[in-house]
Amino acid sequence: MYDGIVQDLIDEFGRLPGIGPKSAQRIAFHILQTQSFDVSRLAELLTVVRERVRFCEVCGNITEEERCAICRDPRRDRTLICVVEEPKDVVAIERTRQFRGLYHVLGGAISPIDGVKPEDLSITQLMRRLSAGAVPESGDEPVREVIIATDPNLEGEATAAYLSRLLSAIEIPVSRLASGLPVGGDLEFADEVTLGRAFEGRTKLV
Amino acid sequence: MYDGIVQDLIDEFGRLPGIGPKSAQRIAFHILQTQSFDVSRLAELLTVVRERVRFCEVCGNITEEERCAICRDPRRDRTLICVVEEPKDVVAIERTRQFRGLYHVLGGAISPIDGVKPEDLSITQLMRRLSAGAVPESGDEPVREVIIATDPNLEGEATAAYLSRLLSAIEIPVSRLASGLPVGGDLEFADEVTLGRAFEGRTKLV
Repeated sequence: MYDGIVQDLIDEFGRLPGIGPKSAQRIAFHILQTQSFDVSRLAELLTVVRERVRFCEVCGNITEEERCAICRDPRRDRTLICVVEEPKDVVAIERTRQFRGLYHVLGGAISPIDGVKPEDLSITQLMRRLSAGAVPESGDEPVREVIIATDPNLEGEATAAYLSRLLSAIEIPVSRLASGLPVGGDLEFADEVTLGRAFEGRTKLV
Repeated sequence: MYDGIVQDLIDEFGRLPGIGPKSAQRIAFHILQTQSFDVSRLAELLTVVRERVRFCEVCGNITEEERCAICRDPRRDRTLICVVEEPKDVVAIERTRQFRGLYHVLGGAISPIDGVKPEDLSITQLMRRLSAGAVPESGDEPVREVIIATDPNLEGEATAAYLSRLLSAIEIPVSRLASGLPVGGDLEFADEVTLGRAFEGRTKLV
């Protein structure tokens, strides 16, 4: 609908996740009309980010170094490993400030529909990390617990089940994040599966 | 929350309209992880688009030439001028395939709250275009009608009122797009102003 490169820019933005044609158009016009928006900075970052960003050789999290900031941090508890699907999950958990251990990023979840098999995830690396009896840098301290924090959906649950079967063989305690009612939510609006889980996982008060 | 440039990229995307922190994060990870996404193309377009795109010297629409594709098109009816706020409005109207005249893009609407005054819009250019008695390229054919197609909101209505007052002086017929019930909508969900307008503008059937 537009002349040449404006349409090209709209199309290119439209290829990004969560950006439909209308949003893409809005963004393109914003870039055209807002002089204060630094196009060269975004252009440079786009070029540089793919070259510089890689995955931590220990846990698979994103980093610009060989090891990510969390694996490098000497104050982290190296006897706890939290297994997540994606680097964004690391950030979500870090925000809670509840977990001070290390992570292992699988790079996805098992999903036969999307063709993601266990071999496509960094499960072998996880098993190697654990079967050494300890995380490489932890000295000789063994891993105390593996916390499985995959998403509470079909793929995440399947991955958790698969992992717990593998891990049961090497005798390291394995746990899974609790399912239940979201804090601040309304009981009447909870779906039946979540409510069922909340019953199963109820905690004793008195 | 992320290491260096990944966070920079997320921040930069977060500056775009309609993209919150979560979407920005999702987009940044998509770019990092999807090898098929052509970062260099988006980067190049971003750099080139500001340099190359300008505003049509006749109507104010966006173009890479001196005049936009519509002003250059000899098949367009040069005696009809449709006044819109933004270049995106031109595209919206073009999609209807109902209008074959020329446009005039104001570059916004009068809005005292946002500090947009009539002088900030290309109203002088419009008056010059019309007071010549004809659009420059139309030979000697006078403009038959000016159709005001500003948005049906407070600012758009104020702009339409301002323009119609100016235009009444030079004796060119002026019209305004109809307000009424949106096609495919439900009467009961229409707001009272729209429904009121639909009554005012009712058309005779028999």
